[in-house]
Amino acid sequence: MLRACAKHLRALGAVRQPLLCEPRPALRSFSSKKVVYKDFSIPNPSWRRDIRLLFDEFMKKCEDGSWKCLPPGKCGSIQRTQDFKTFCLDPELRKEDLRTQTRVFTSSFEEGLGFEYVMFYNDVEKRTVCLFQGGPYLKGMPGFLHGGAIATMIDTTLGMSAVIAGGTVMTANLNINFKRPIPLCSVVVINSQLDKVEGRKVFVSGNVQSADEKTLYSEATSLFIKLDPDKSLT
Amino acid sequence: MLRACAKHLRALGAVRQPLLCEPRPALRSFSSKKVVYKDFSIPNPSWRRDIRLLFDEFMKKCEDGSWKCLPPGKCGSIQRTQDFKTFCLDPELRKEDLRTQTRVFTSSFEEGLGFEYVMFYNDVEKRTVCLFQGGPYLKGMPGFLHGGAIATMIDTTLGMSAVIAGGTVMTANLNINFKRPIPLCSVVVINSQLDKVEGRKVFVSGNVQSADEKTLYSEATSLFIKLDPDKSLT
Repeated sequence: MLRACAKHLRALGAVRQPLLCEPRPALRSFSSKKVVYKDFSIPNPSWRRDIRLLFDEFMKKCEDGSWKCLPPGKCGSIQRTQDFKTFCLDPELRKEDLRTQTRVFTSSFEEGLGFEYVMFYNDVEKRTVCLFQGGPYLKGMPGFLHGGAIATMIDTTLGMSAVIAGGTVMTANLNINFKRPIPLCSVVVINSQLDKVEGRKVFVSGNVQSADEKTLYSEATSLFIKLDPDKSLT
Repeated sequence: MLRACAKHLRALGAVRQPLLCEPRPALRSFSSKKVVYKDFSIPNPSWRRDIRLLFDEFMKKCEDGSWKCLPPGKCGSIQRTQDFKTFCLDPELRKEDLRTQTRVFTSSFEEGLGFEYVMFYNDVEKRTVCLFQGGPYLKGMPGFLHGGAIATMIDTTLGMSAVIAGGTVMTANLNINFKRPIPLCSVVVINSQLDKVEGRKVFVSGNVQSADEKTLYSEATSLFIKLDPDKSLT
């Protein structure tokens, strides 16, 4: 089943360019030069029962080709393959040390502590689903996820829909209604739907539900702008 | 000057309840039981020149009492002092291990890697200012902060204005226009303004600017709802 995930990913021609991902570095110390790469797109021991069951369910949906498994990690909504130096005009921020020390935000915690997630995509429905388990380092008020952590995963999931539709994009607007707080370390499903594409504008909406779909935690709309890779962003 | 910050904080009666903060644990490993507490509300070696200069500038403004220095760390927009068990209904999520392993999201990175910030408050203007340096673990596209990290700090800063005005609150809506990407590890100023309070609703708006105020990075509006501490959130 896991091999099928990788196979489907390779077959997903429509998202090949935005999904030129490297695996994220695992469990390294800040000062260490040695980076051990690990595949974070498969279940790990920190995953709770709910997310494992949902993962298996979606992997079954992948068998007939209607859904594709997308890799997490560096495949953020606004990921670009160009080098750091291309964009960063401040010489101090272009130092080699800093470049090698960066981590993609959603991949920056050790296993089980932060953002544990996997995404699936349905090309016919133009729908992306993210299975997300927010770890104990994402706390807002006691017992619940921080609103910023929820916003991060909404941006990442809705952004994936925009990337698939528009190539390289950047978030221009994110509007979130937080309806209920999400218990820390629980598993939620983030649903993302491509609404329309108008020129360089890509409109995507979505919501966050409990694993059993009985609780609606958040709703969101977003606007992404397609970028010209040849132009500087600053 | 740093002692003055603490003194002004104690004098800030209006925000005493929401600011019952503990210092965040520093540089501990996940498995270790030993937690060394450190004061993160003062400059540390990771702070760049820009944030140190702004910090000194605002500390001077504190001398006549017009501005107050607020502690970072656990003082998030939706921080509550009640125990984890009060809210978390899932028995598995109430285990002692998990409770002791949690960290407030904005305090969950080691020094210099994630969210470095300090806030100041002006009671007459009903304005909160956050000086923020986003570390290398908050990367979105190469060289820039992740939109979710920006949303996190906007939520935290605007939430602080809401906490001061309304006591215990929770984010109900967050609407952000991202106008320009923010270079990774740069210093920005997040301005937050209390707009109005209508019953349980607290409206706050704000923006994110460069340290020299020449670049407008983001604009945001938000709605917070005052909570009844005696009622469960789930």
